[in-house]
Amino acid sequence: MTVPDTAAPVLFEQRDSGVAVVTLNRPERMNAWGGGLAGAFYRCMDRAEADPEVRVIVVTGNGRAFCAGADMGDLDAIGGASESAGDTDVTQLVGERHPYFVTGVNKPIIAAINGACAGIGLTQALMCDIRFAAAGAKFTTAFARRGLIAEYGISWILPRLVGWGAALDLLLTGRTFYAEEALELGLVKEVVAPDELLARVLSYADDMARNCAPSALAVIKRQVYDDALRDMVATSAQAEKLMHESMQRPDFIEGITAFFEKRPPNFPPLEEDKP
Amino acid sequence: MTVPDTAAPVLFEQRDSGVAVVTLNRPERMNAWGGGLAGAFYRCMDRAEADPEVRVIVVTGNGRAFCAGADMGDLDAIGGASESAGDTDVTQLVGERHPYFVTGVNKPIIAAINGACAGIGLTQALMCDIRFAAAGAKFTTAFARRGLIAEYGISWILPRLVGWGAALDLLLTGRTFYAEEALELGLVKEVVAPDELLARVLSYADDMARNCAPSALAVIKRQVYDDALRDMVATSAQAEKLMHESMQRPDFIEGITAFFEKRPPNFPPLEEDKP
Amino acid sequence: MTVPDTAAPVLFEQRDSGVAVVTLNRPERMNAWGGGLAGAFYRCMDRAEADPEVRVIVVTGNGRAFCAGADMGDLDAIGGASESAGDTDVTQLVGERHPYFVTGVNKPIIAAINGACAGIGLTQALMCDIRFAAAGAKFTTAFARRGLIAEYGISWILPRLVGWGAALDLLLTGRTFYAEEALELGLVKEVVAPDELLARVLSYADDMARNCAPSALAVIKRQVYDDALRDMVATSAQAEKLMHESMQRPDFIEGITAFFEKRPPNFPPLEEDKP
Repeated sequence: MTVPDTAAPVLFEQRDSGVAVVTLNRPERMNAWGGGLAGAFYRCMDRAEADPEVRVIVVTGNGRAFCAGADMGDLDAIGGASESAGDTDVTQLVGERHPYFVTGVNKPIIAAINGACAGIGLTQALMCDIRFAAAGAKFTTAFARRGLIAEYGISWILPRLVGWGAALDLLLTGRTFYAEEALELGLVKEVVAPDELLARVLSYADDMARNCAPSALAVIKRQVYDDALRDMVATSAQAEKLMHESMQRPDFIEGITAFFEKRPPNFPPLEEDKP
Repeated sequence: MTVPDTAAPVLFEQRDSGVAVVTLNRPERMNAWGGGLAGAFYRCMDRAEADPEVRVIVVTGNGRAFCAGADMGDLDAIGGASESAGDTDVTQLVGERHPYFVTGVNKPIIAAINGACAGIGLTQALMCDIRFAAAGAKFTTAFARRGLIAEYGISWILPRLVGWGAALDLLLTGRTFYAEEALELGLVKEVVAPDELLARVLSYADDMARNCAPSALAVIKRQVYDDALRDMVATSAQAEKLMHESMQRPDFIEGITAFFEKRPPNFPPLEEDKP
Repeated sequence: MTVPDTAAPVLFEQRDSGVAVVTLNRPERMNAWGGGLAGAFYRCMDRAEADPEVRVIVVTGNGRAFCAGADMGDLDAIGGASESAGDTDVTQLVGERHPYFVTGVNKPIIAAINGACAGIGLTQALMCDIRFAAAGAKFTTAFARRGLIAEYGISWILPRLVGWGAALDLLLTGRTFYAEEALELGLVKEVVAPDELLARVLSYADDMARNCAPSALAVIKRQVYDDALRDMVATSAQAEKLMHESMQRPDFIEGITAFFEKRPPNFPPLEEDKP
């Protein structure tokens, strides 16, 4: 592993397995979302996307929280400004990108939700492809209780993860719920004891990085999001085209050969600006 | 509470908390859907929508049923008319509105399903935003067993609540199922002992009415339904616009201030024809 | 029952109840998908669709597998051909039709997943309307581990059965999972002891064939798939039109009359090229 710069608002660690760990690192502010932390997060994600050594990305938080929402310092300033709130640049809260940008990253992104996950922090976690949570981790959408709306795409992804009924319950109440209920609802894949969370997620991510073709991961991830609004005929036609392309890559031969030889596959890294 | 007119086919009660309770009240006909009851229901929903004192709406049934489906008296007459069934005005069964109209109401609607919930009664319940059910309550789509089709939008909402597989099972068999299975499938949020159902739902609704901004509830509800067919980019762009608007409302300042002062918020009612 | 030709790659049995059982029958090749078996499957489905005596279709496998994926013999040949893989005609793997064609069949299709269900075999199973699985049956998408993509529509149907989060987990890992997890995820309706699977599915299918109007089944099935990309207004308007049509069919009178007379209905078969 490379040694991270522990003073940075977001840490980046590269593991030998091909997994990069991106850690939100403002524990004294519950990793609240804001200019500095958000910008550093975007840089880390760009680095992971550009580096062929990175095959899978894990996102987690340092300290008690995963991300407690928009930076309350910033919001407090806005609240104090009172009448001038209408002049606030909303982009300061969300940063320069909308959370859904991670669905366009070519590599699988797994959230290891170590603690509190609220507001835009929850939106960002839901835009990751797969989620694990520490037992007892606290979740809330919070928006309705602050006079705010369903922020930046959560009204798209939450119903598709838990169904429209559960999404309306969570969004219209802004209530607190816990990792255990998140698991029942299908919002997270697994709940793990807090001190075993990162090890479990890394084991899951390492397996993916070692055994799945990066080209396949990039294509499949894009299919699952893009086909949400395609009809079945167009989806299947597109799959046929992608299938042809995948059979022209050496990964296919390697995947089949390794399977028949009962050995781990040795897939090449994803070239930049591919697949 | 105002005293309801107990002879009316649908009762309307306004609670101090800002919750209106709309009760289907033809227990001797299992609250079957038909001209008189449906019309009275629309009037009650219009009243709830227009009254700024109403922030959350609860819909329930009087007696053994929530709503046992289309009025069998009407249907029996149609059946007796035999060859002339083709001339029946279908709108007589459904009333002057399609069940999805409640998804356009600006206030959250919670169904307290006290008993049998069948056919168009089930469609109407599924169009409510959130559902609680009494233990043992009986559900059925019924349509396929009567030679009918998936009525008035249930083929839209049911798959989005329980997934396409469970929806096909429930619609293609027309089988009876119970509150407990409805809970497992995600069709209802909670199952409650019958004599505690209304108290539980009112406690849930009161919390929402007291702690969530009516403007936020109206916007979020609309987002969740409208974004079903929007793509992620358009959803997030629309959320940014709505976020700007929400930050120009006093509700946002009140929401943040109350949060920091650790006191309940004091949100203004929703003005008519808003947000 | 008619006596099946046990040498055929796919068996067709017609039951008195109106249920046809289509059995993949290359147990020595784990019912792997390929030219011969796929073609025979299409012929059986066409026969079931055309025969008015067939009201419900059950699909199952002979031996240890339901369908272990694309025929590995064929793929092996491709793998051996190495550099020429790019010239492979993908349609040889999938056959002359894409798996979603079964969603266009007018009759409900129930998969009795007796054993291993992988790759394109899983895609085909997911395109059936309802699924039962034998306890312990093994599932995998497998694609990412072979350098392949989400084949032929699985990126459309899987998220709609289990949600986008679980779909990404299953597709991006290509991991093995079992019937019990498939049940939890909502990928199958029921898990049954292996030696009771077919009896349970036949009992479920017989009930549907005896009590549900074939015309209603055909319309409802089409609604559920077609309304996936319609908005609620269009869905409900379409339902009103279909409701009018259904009330002009004798099935409606029979359905209501049988209900009031507390006797089983006697619905006519679906005419060809209807409803």
